[in-house]
Amino acid sequence: MLTKTPHLFDDATQVTAGDSRWQGKTSEDYWAFVGPFGGATAATILRALIDHPQRAGDPLSLTVNFCAPVAHGAFDLDVRLVKANRSSQHWCVEMTQGGGEVSTLATAVFAERRPSWDHTQAPFPGATPFAQARSFPRTPMTWTHQYDFRFVEGEPSFYGTPSLSPPISAYSKQWIGDHVPRKIDMLSLMSMSDAFFGRVFLARREMIPFGTVSITTYFHTASEELADEDISHVLAVADAKIFHKSYGDQSGELWSPNGRLLAATTQIAYFKA
Amino acid sequence: MLTKTPHLFDDATQVTAGDSRWQGKTSEDYWAFVGPFGGATAATILRALIDHPQRAGDPLSLTVNFCAPVAHGAFDLDVRLVKANRSSQHWCVEMTQGGGEVSTLATAVFAERRPSWDHTQAPFPGATPFAQARSFPRTPMTWTHQYDFRFVEGEPSFYGTPSLSPPISAYSKQWIGDHVPRKIDMLSLMSMSDAFFGRVFLARREMIPFGTVSITTYFHTASEELADEDISHVLAVADAKIFHKSYGDQSGELWSPNGRLLAATTQIAYFKA
Repeated sequence: MLTKTPHLFDDATQVTAGDSRWQGKTSEDYWAFVGPFGGATAATILRALIDHPQRAGDPLSLTVNFCAPVAHGAFDLDVRLVKANRSSQHWCVEMTQGGGEVSTLATAVFAERRPSWDHTQAPFPGATPFAQARSFPRTPMTWTHQYDFRFVEGEPSFYGTPSLSPPISAYSKQWIGDHVPRKIDMLSLMSMSDAFFGRVFLARREMIPFGTVSITTYFHTASEELADEDISHVLAVADAKIFHKSYGDQSGELWSPNGRLLAATTQIAYFKA
Repeated sequence: MLTKTPHLFDDATQVTAGDSRWQGKTSEDYWAFVGPFGGATAATILRALIDHPQRAGDPLSLTVNFCAPVAHGAFDLDVRLVKANRSSQHWCVEMTQGGGEVSTLATAVFAERRPSWDHTQAPFPGATPFAQARSFPRTPMTWTHQYDFRFVEGEPSFYGTPSLSPPISAYSKQWIGDHVPRKIDMLSLMSMSDAFFGRVFLARREMIPFGTVSITTYFHTASEELADEDISHVLAVADAKIFHKSYGDQSGELWSPNGRLLAATTQIAYFKA
């Protein structure tokens, strides 16, 4: 079942169906510091849920807790429908490798997105068009090779001199698309939610030991609306509120180029500085 | 073990220890539309974790998914330490009643908060002092009787004429304390994270059917730091990004009166309008 698909992202997030136990494998193409890129792990979990025969509705919320490093190779996903209501579902997913301890723990909510009163409160960030923005150079982490990051504001400077005098800013605005263009779907939104560079890198202006502990993404679009957008990149903004006692946060938004808010994400991450 | 304690909040969030199965009961004093106030449920889950003999470190993150209405009376909490690392722990909690289906599903991360580089990026909102702000009148929901809400900006007007012409704002800034003053602890922060009125009520300027589906709170203070603050109210701000296809979001911050960010929270909620 794990066939090579045309796009590396689909290969990296491939799953093999089981009843309650699904299988996947890590991808060398989406590797980070000490394990797979968390966004690819989260997208793989989301794929297992979307592909699940009992799934109904669109992804509304996904929280992924990264409990332990994931090793190269195969993993199992224990996928459990915890509670199904008339128009929503609650899921729990546990990732293990070789029958060992849980490395990733996730909960998800799916829901039917019925028409309602509609209002977007957050302002569209706006930006220089994707085509006119400059691509960010590759980093040693292979997952960054799979994306085309085009910063409009707050481009990280990893190799400069750490400057800890104010103004310190952790804000950035950037286009994100797959390096090999791929139509944005729910899996893209989940993965791209974790495709911001650590806010502490920007605030400190240096690379330091860092790891996402927990990420939550809310999907603000129905699947068919997203398909109708027919886009291959999003405009993303991210910022941090605080760095305190070895943990810092991040909030982010993913927008369609024509100004629709597609997803919002928050995470808390460990850092050493 | 379920003794009457001096403060209603402690009574409402009381738990009886078990090995992996803990017990609690809903409180008539913290009742919302169709079930217990979600903040009290979340705080009860947090209390079970904090009181657990295997717990190490401070709460860092708690996500609570409200799967089904909770009925009046007793409930069980299945409390499971999913993964323990050297300086962090991952927990999963499932609430059931009478051996039935899961009504609430939560995951939590606890961590040792070691000293580090420290920087607060978010600006302190600032406000008229608590003593000079006016208390918000009670609503029919009993849980609102247990809190003293003092709005500084964006006081909800539930009984006015719905106005859907711009400017629509879902922002509010308010003091929150227990009606009977109680020293702010981690349980307070969790409960108060869900003690904002639904953002859609502000945006629509009317009460409509509403229910939180999933809430995530990040704790940005160590327990002993919070104890040292020795405060009985917090300055809270909340806003929404979007209301779309029957679901809307909320982001909030809880600050100490002297300007320290204590917790940040996000939630996604159902509404009918």
